[in-house]
Amino acid sequence: MGIEEDLPLLYRTPPEWAAVALASPLLLLNDHAHLEKKAAGNALDMLARWPEPSPPENWVHSMTSIASDEIAHLQLVTKILSRRGGRLTKAHQNPYAAELRSHVRRGGGTEETLDRLLVSALIEARSCERFRLLGDHCPDEELARLYEGLYRSEAGHYRVFLALARALPDRPAVDARWEEFLRLEKEIIQRQPPGPTMHSGPAITH
Amino acid sequence: MGIEEDLPLLYRTPPEWAAVALASPLLLLNDHAHLEKKAAGNALDMLARWPEPSPPENWVHSMTSIASDEIAHLQLVTKILSRRGGRLTKAHQNPYAAELRSHVRRGGGTEETLDRLLVSALIEARSCERFRLLGDHCPDEELARLYEGLYRSEAGHYRVFLALARALPDRPAVDARWEEFLRLEKEIIQRQPPGPTMHSGPAITH
Repeated sequence: MGIEEDLPLLYRTPPEWAAVALASPLLLLNDHAHLEKKAAGNALDMLARWPEPSPPENWVHSMTSIASDEIAHLQLVTKILSRRGGRLTKAHQNPYAAELRSHVRRGGGTEETLDRLLVSALIEARSCERFRLLGDHCPDEELARLYEGLYRSEAGHYRVFLALARALPDRPAVDARWEEFLRLEKEIIQRQPPGPTMHSGPAITH
Repeated sequence: MGIEEDLPLLYRTPPEWAAVALASPLLLLNDHAHLEKKAAGNALDMLARWPEPSPPENWVHSMTSIASDEIAHLQLVTKILSRRGGRLTKAHQNPYAAELRSHVRRGGGTEETLDRLLVSALIEARSCERFRLLGDHCPDEELARLYEGLYRSEAGHYRVFLALARALPDRPAVDARWEEFLRLEKEIIQRQPPGPTMHSGPAITH
């Protein structure tokens, strides 16, 4: 099942995707900055969503470390965006993440916590796969270095979320739900339109 | 008007406050961790709330830097809390900040941005005053060092929010609103009950 080293994703993004995304580097950096901001906010939000009765070992440390990493990336990406004359937009849409999140079972209990951890893991894994492609195919040296660095830094995040999910009670249900989400993600990512965003769909080839 | 070096606050917390707050150091650390988390979330939220048409110079850099500082403090405080056998609570109330925020004029325009910047500046200034008192009066050496370090680190934050507010158009209105908020804060902080929180009221003396 493994693709791109040990990333568990079921759909492998074709290299052509990177050329389309990189055709508008400032738009891609803007989208990326918003994703880092949302990832930091998500880690802060997850910080207090541990399963009762008390935070599992590593929960608080994991969430604060991820938030710290994402903020550092946000600083880096906004600095490059600004130096290159781009500007951050106020609003940002991520239909890929929104659709994944629409499958989270609500109610505030362990099911919601599990689903949120799995969705977080998936988004991190997909971003990681995309950073690798961008790093490999970016003709701009500074940006290629940025994406390579982020690939390395972000590679650990999906494992952290997944490990926290697997440490929840009722392990068999975790694995079944993970398989379900992997299949959902495979469909959702392919349905996205192509373009200069981290979670855009594959380039349409004729 | 200045008290505690150049902090602009109109009410000076008596040193007795620190003894009451420090009587339950784990509860104080828990409250403090939640405040750092909220401060990080606030900086991320403010990131995209610049006045139209485009972010003033330093806006994005200031907000991402503050978010980064607050996350670093959150990591530090949760680490000390955990090492000392305390635990983070899921929920957290801060009636002081909630009451200050209730005076923010809503509507998404410049007035709201101004009020949010001023409330952020006030909360930072008050926290800074309190860190100084805790650092000076804490009998526990590790915690005294923590609070002294935070005093130094946080001292710059209120100035950043205030400078961004003063860079908004219509400077005289900014100064009048700041005076109004300073007077409000003086009343609100004194009305809080005493206890092991960063924004508790003065100890009741007989």
